Amino acid sequence: MKYGHFDDANREYVITNPKTPYPWINYLGNEDFFSLTSNTAGGYTFYKDAKFRRLTRYRYNNVPMDDGGKYFYIKDGDTVWSPGWKPSKTELDSYECRHGMSYTKFKGAKNGVETEVIQFIPLGFWGEIQKVTVKNTSPEVKKLKLFSFVEWCLWNAEDDMTNFQRNFNTGEVEIEDSVIYHKTEFKERRNHYAFYSVNQPINGFDTDRESFIGLYNGFDTPDVVTEGKPKNSVAHGWSPIASHYIEVELQPGEEKDYVFMLGYVEVDKEDKWESKSIINKKPAKEMIAKFDTVEKVQAALDELRTYWDNLLGKINIQSNDDKLDRMVNIWNQYQCMVTFNMSRSASFFESGIGRGMGFRDSNQDLIGFVHQIPERARERIFDIASTQFEDGSCYHQYQPLTKKGNSAVGGDFNDDPLWLILSTTEYIKETGDFSLLDEMVPFDNDASKAKPHFEHLKVSFYHVVHNLGPHGLPLIGRADWNDCLNLNCFSEDPNESFQTTGNKKDGKAESLMIAGLFVVYGKEYVKLCRRIGKEEEANEAENHVNNMIEAVKKHGWDGDWYLRAYDYYGNKIGSNENEEGKIFIESQGWCTMAEIGKEEGMVEKSLDAVKEHLDCDYGIVLNSPAFTKYYIEYGEISTYPAGYKENGGIFCHNNPWIMIGETVLGRGDQAYDYYTKIAPSFLEDISELHKVEPYVYCQMIAGKEAFKPGEAKNSWLSGTASWNFFAITQYILGIKTDYDGLNINPCIPKKWDGFKMKRDFRGATYHIEVKNPDHVSKGIKLINVNGKAIDSTIVPILEKGKEHTIEVIMG
Amino acid sequence: MKYGHFDDANREYVITNPKTPYPWINYLGNEDFFSLTSNTAGGYTFYKDAKFRRLTRYRYNNVPMDDGGKYFYIKDGDTVWSPGWKPSKTELDSYECRHGMSYTKFKGAKNGVETEVIQFIPLGFWGEIQKVTVKNTSPEVKKLKLFSFVEWCLWNAEDDMTNFQRNFNTGEVEIEDSVIYHKTEFKERRNHYAFYSVNQPINGFDTDRESFIGLYNGFDTPDVVTEGKPKNSVAHGWSPIASHYIEVELQPGEEKDYVFMLGYVEVDKEDKWESKSIINKKPAKEMIAKFDTVEKVQAALDELRTYWDNLLGKINIQSNDDKLDRMVNIWNQYQCMVTFNMSRSASFFESGIGRGMGFRDSNQDLIGFVHQIPERARERIFDIASTQFEDGSCYHQYQPLTKKGNSAVGGDFNDDPLWLILSTTEYIKETGDFSLLDEMVPFDNDASKAKPHFEHLKVSFYHVVHNLGPHGLPLIGRADWNDCLNLNCFSEDPNESFQTTGNKKDGKAESLMIAGLFVVYGKEYVKLCRRIGKEEEANEAENHVNNMIEAVKKHGWDGDWYLRAYDYYGNKIGSNENEEGKIFIESQGWCTMAEIGKEEGMVEKSLDAVKEHLDCDYGIVLNSPAFTKYYIEYGEISTYPAGYKENGGIFCHNNPWIMIGETVLGRGDQAYDYYTKIAPSFLEDISELHKVEPYVYCQMIAGKEAFKPGEAKNSWLSGTASWNFFAITQYILGIKTDYDGLNINPCIPKKWDGFKMKRDFRGATYHIEVKNPDHVSKGIKLINVNGKAIDSTIVPILEKGKEHTIEVIMG
Repeated sequence: MKYGHFDDANREYVITNPKTPYPWINYLGNEDFFSLTSNTAGGYTFYKDAKFRRLTRYRYNNVPMDDGGKYFYIKDGDTVWSPGWKPSKTELDSYECRHGMSYTKFKGAKNGVETEVIQFIPLGFWGEIQKVTVKNTSPEVKKLKLFSFVEWCLWNAEDDMTNFQRNFNTGEVEIEDSVIYHKTEFKERRNHYAFYSVNQPINGFDTDRESFIGLYNGFDTPDVVTEGKPKNSVAHGWSPIASHYIEVELQPGEEKDYVFMLGYVEVDKEDKWESKSIINKKPAKEMIAKFDTVEKVQAALDELRTYWDNLLGKINIQSNDDKLDRMVNIWNQYQCMVTFNMSRSASFFESGIGRGMGFRDSNQDLIGFVHQIPERARERIFDIASTQFEDGSCYHQYQPLTKKGNSAVGGDFNDDPLWLILSTTEYIKETGDFSLLDEMVPFDNDASKAKPHFEHLKVSFYHVVHNLGPHGLPLIGRADWNDCLNLNCFSEDPNESFQTTGNKKDGKAESLMIAGLFVVYGKEYVKLCRRIGKEEEANEAENHVNNMIEAVKKHGWDGDWYLRAYDYYGNKIGSNENEEGKIFIESQGWCTMAEIGKEEGMVEKSLDAVKEHLDCDYGIVLNSPAFTKYYIEYGEISTYPAGYKENGGIFCHNNPWIMIGETVLGRGDQAYDYYTKIAPSFLEDISELHKVEPYVYCQMIAGKEAFKPGEAKNSWLSGTASWNFFAITQYILGIKTDYDGLNINPCIPKKWDGFKMKRDFRGATYHIEVKNPDHVSKGIKLINVNGKAIDSTIVPILEKGKEHTIEVIMG
Repeated sequence: MKYGHFDDANREYVITNPKTPYPWINYLGNEDFFSLTSNTAGGYTFYKDAKFRRLTRYRYNNVPMDDGGKYFYIKDGDTVWSPGWKPSKTELDSYECRHGMSYTKFKGAKNGVETEVIQFIPLGFWGEIQKVTVKNTSPEVKKLKLFSFVEWCLWNAEDDMTNFQRNFNTGEVEIEDSVIYHKTEFKERRNHYAFYSVNQPINGFDTDRESFIGLYNGFDTPDVVTEGKPKNSVAHGWSPIASHYIEVELQPGEEKDYVFMLGYVEVDKEDKWESKSIINKKPAKEMIAKFDTVEKVQAALDELRTYWDNLLGKINIQSNDDKLDRMVNIWNQYQCMVTFNMSRSASFFESGIGRGMGFRDSNQDLIGFVHQIPERARERIFDIASTQFEDGSCYHQYQPLTKKGNSAVGGDFNDDPLWLILSTTEYIKETGDFSLLDEMVPFDNDASKAKPHFEHLKVSFYHVVHNLGPHGLPLIGRADWNDCLNLNCFSEDPNESFQTTGNKKDGKAESLMIAGLFVVYGKEYVKLCRRIGKEEEANEAENHVNNMIEAVKKHGWDGDWYLRAYDYYGNKIGSNENEEGKIFIESQGWCTMAEIGKEEGMVEKSLDAVKEHLDCDYGIVLNSPAFTKYYIEYGEISTYPAGYKENGGIFCHNNPWIMIGETVLGRGDQAYDYYTKIAPSFLEDISELHKVEPYVYCQMIAGKEAFKPGEAKNSWLSGTASWNFFAITQYILGIKTDYDGLNINPCIPKKWDGFKMKRDFRGATYHIEVKNPDHVSKGIKLINVNGKAIDSTIVPILEKGKEHTIEVIMG
């Protein structure tokens, strides 16, 4: 069952049934100021940090689900309805929600009135615009009552939902003209306030939630709307809100536009007050003036579209499959940008109060957007590297407001440092900008400890070398990429977090996943050293990499696949000897990508084992069999019910590692089959089961041992986005950036006749056409660059500012 | 406007209009297992710790307010209604909610069907009973459908409302017969589960919230109830619930009873499983069997009533004012017991996740319940003292599950230690049990550091002596009793907590409130030392007390009242010199109770100043004028809007200090006037303004400078309960416990003719009749004990097990 359809021309997903199986959301905003908005107008807004600077309240796991948002009520006689169906939930004559690139558009019609609401955040602006159009399509004059509604969050989202004893006393607002100002705690240490305005005179307002809604009503039936009369309430404590009341009279055929703005203002400490206890409204008024007409709003929308044209235009493919094209050209790239903006902080599944920017996450996310915004990627790399310690270890995350590392979710994840080599080398390959290696970058945010960025890579590499276990394999530390494989934790207390509970001090648990990762990015490190003339360093590093390869072959091979780890006691994990958890995906992914033991057949055996033991209808599960009981020596992984999350779930982030592994063997059909199993646009028809959005990846799909295989969770903010984009574009379609050009080596389904890719690279545009007359999966017969054959598979860096034609013949 | 009435004979408050101005709640449970229940059946259940061991979900500050609870739906034809009005909100033919002593009873009727739901927790039992009676009062046969509903919390209430990424995957249940078991995380480290049962066969069930309610409905209209058909859903992740479905056929006049039980089970680690993945249900079945008939339930209810008869029977008064009698005899004592049970952890205003047991709070709470449960008071004293440090300082709170101190809300509140002298001496005066002074009590929960409890008092006393400031007055530390007077904090960052943000290291701010407190409990310490023969220690301590008195007279007097403090810079706070915050209540209370400078007229001047500057229609405000801007050197107090909370609010906890101060001067009319201004039963008629329950005290009433003076917040769990009880019984009614008897010295309104008090004391019953023929406020002319006049105002300890008659003639 479908709940809508793709509109590729407009780059929109069009939802036509508001009762999606889960709220289907979109993200607005691109720099400092963001909103989430669901397909029924639920959601919230924040400035930079979803925890510490939350503008509006939102209730995720509520009854009803997805409660609170940017709500409009239209009262037409006795009928009250909402353009986005919710909150009124009055059945509409027509409903449409269009999630586009950084905007969402609602169209709702009822009883001869049509409305359109466009929500977006103009570029570089700290405010959300809601342009509301109301049109009378009936033959009679319509006298309508329009109510807007947002509920203010008292800034710190965590405190806001717990510290009522204080918070019910602090709420303060001001109302002037058509603007409602939220100034809670502005009196004290906050130098910021929010406002909600409309560009026309209003006929009344409310700012106190209880006055507007009533204690016993839901958002569907606020007292004021039911009665059709605002109370002009002024909030003092309790729960401040902002609601405008506008009387709208429309002749037959007439339409009117209203521009609402939800804005955020920071003022200088010295410049907070207009007069005693009256806030300085000048900056708000300037913001409002910027978009006080429909024309100005339209110009900003056009600018936003151009912005996305540019971002998405850098890579564009044409295959024979619309589903693939829309993933690569639109939604996967869009998701990568959103994930860049949010890291992991704000989604339905992360309540926006728990997490900052992940060290590991942010490095991996970067491979999904570095081609779109290389300058910001460069900045992000430095932000991340600045939180690293001098020995190469890392805070596991840092806060976006301060950019400082914090240890709230623990440290000592021994894979963390290696991902910095991934992000840095991919950045250089995309841009050719080696200069970042020489930039001075602090350790632990201490400028006095700054060293050239290259040194960060070096300590990252050597952090593994200096932390090897009894088998010469990398010590896992608290955990590796799989946060839930806590091999030195041994927790018996349910109130302990597996992420922060103390390592056994003498922990000797080792990770084959880090071993493979080290070989892959160790080789990259060696290659980079050679490329910048550090031959001696390259040779030394290469020895370490080779030692690791040997260690894996000797101690990491289980006969038919790679082991996953050695536990605290030195026992195998992910071995045929184990009763449960005999095989894991991560080490198969990384050791095959690293091509460890390829000559000996290990890569092929490993991937065949994945197919046999881990693959299912909905993707590749993380481990099999899933754990049915708690293993204190394994930690959180064994706490999940079988088939869910890290315990036998299809963890989409790691599926691309296997896809890439398959391309090592040239098995394009298998690689693409894995791709399509989890790519959301391919799952649109099973939305009822899949539950989450068909336009973005999710973190996890329930695996074959789950109660409901195929049911997905945790959409949007996941490393899945970047890895799938990386796998499809650089390994399956096989247009891979390299230091000296584009390395072209597709690995596609045999039946394909080919595909086209337009690729902006180093200032030039490459029009690549891949032809597959022999219907192979892999192999290059010929490459013509601007009509001339080249010797290598690497298309060199071509003249900037020009269009170039690349013809690739496979065979 | 009233929303109900008192039923004193049944010790109930009877709510007859469900739409109270705020949820009016009750607490069930007396030892380990507790529930909150609102007048519309909202609320939740927990075992010992509202944060770490929460059984069911609840949404406090929701829309609608007070969402989630122990819900029943009755479907009668097309009409769906609920005995407690919510969640259905169908208008009832009749509605009544009776909050009684540890039980709540709902009566609801609709269309010829009457229901009664009694909720309570049997003594010593880890389960809540809901006895449901359904009666057909119509002349036709009724075929009804009864649905129960609770939503499980995944144990840790904080994690439950934030960590969705994990939690949506972990939910697990089992269903067997009529019992739904909630076993989330039982698989791993939890050795406990919950269950929801009914004592009769069921016709179906649901355990998955989305299946039962639907994504887009509120609790008022669940899909399953609307359709009248259960889905027999089995929860796997998402949000597990428990709903029984029962078909009820009733002949005209017939009624049926159903006993539901919401229970909690702990099992031995070795005994968790019945078979693979099937939990050990034996303990649950034993619990269910205990209350599987109406008779067994009634017996438990009777036992509960007897329990409360005993508790409340120890002090019972008869005055000419029902409002006073019901406060003293029923509701204030009841609130004191509830406050003992909960400390501050669970209420509408404390979301149950933030706070443990307060050191200061728990000591003060004790004076409200020591006469009821002296054994448990003794245990509580040791629990508290065990968390103290060897230098006398304290953790500010400890966790009920572990009884260990935790520093999440900071330490170094320099008043904390002194309250231990209060609780200990009041315990001894009530019981005569000096033996607790010799019990070995750990410091910082370290048994190897244990010393006799007396040493805890000594270090408490000397902690002040060792921490004096430049004026010889007590250093305030992080803050004193007024948590919000943060004189060494200086916070500029809104993300910092005032309670934990670093003291300026060299802080020299001093507190006059601690000075008065020290004199009061210093004198008590001296008196205790003398009483147990420690004359030398008494003399030394007395010197310190006298020094403090002199220091206050010299540096703490502002001319017309006592100063409040000296700030970090040595500037005065609470002085006529100040622009705002010229006078504060706390130091007037404690310095007048300490009688500092009484001969010089200071006490009288101070109390007159309170009357002039702090008193208003709704009680005595904390400070005046309230602060209109942020004073970085004062901290949180100045963050609140004027008139609210610690900034000019009527903080009910401290009003009794002034009442007691007034009794020092013998001004009974004034003392009682202050008493009645904040005593809830006296505010019943202004419930619409007052907002919170008219049967229990609240923490704060908006003060005279507030937007809405008289509007109250934070009812139930407040030190207000014990202090008001202490003030009315021991100072205004003036029947005061002492080491060697009952010290009788009432201070009452002149117009009173007298009053009676029955007082259990040291195993005997004292029937005291106070007569006031001369219409004085204070003064004893004659005391007859069992017919014989005594010389002193102290009625000695009389023969155990006997009834004694005490006649008191004032004059």
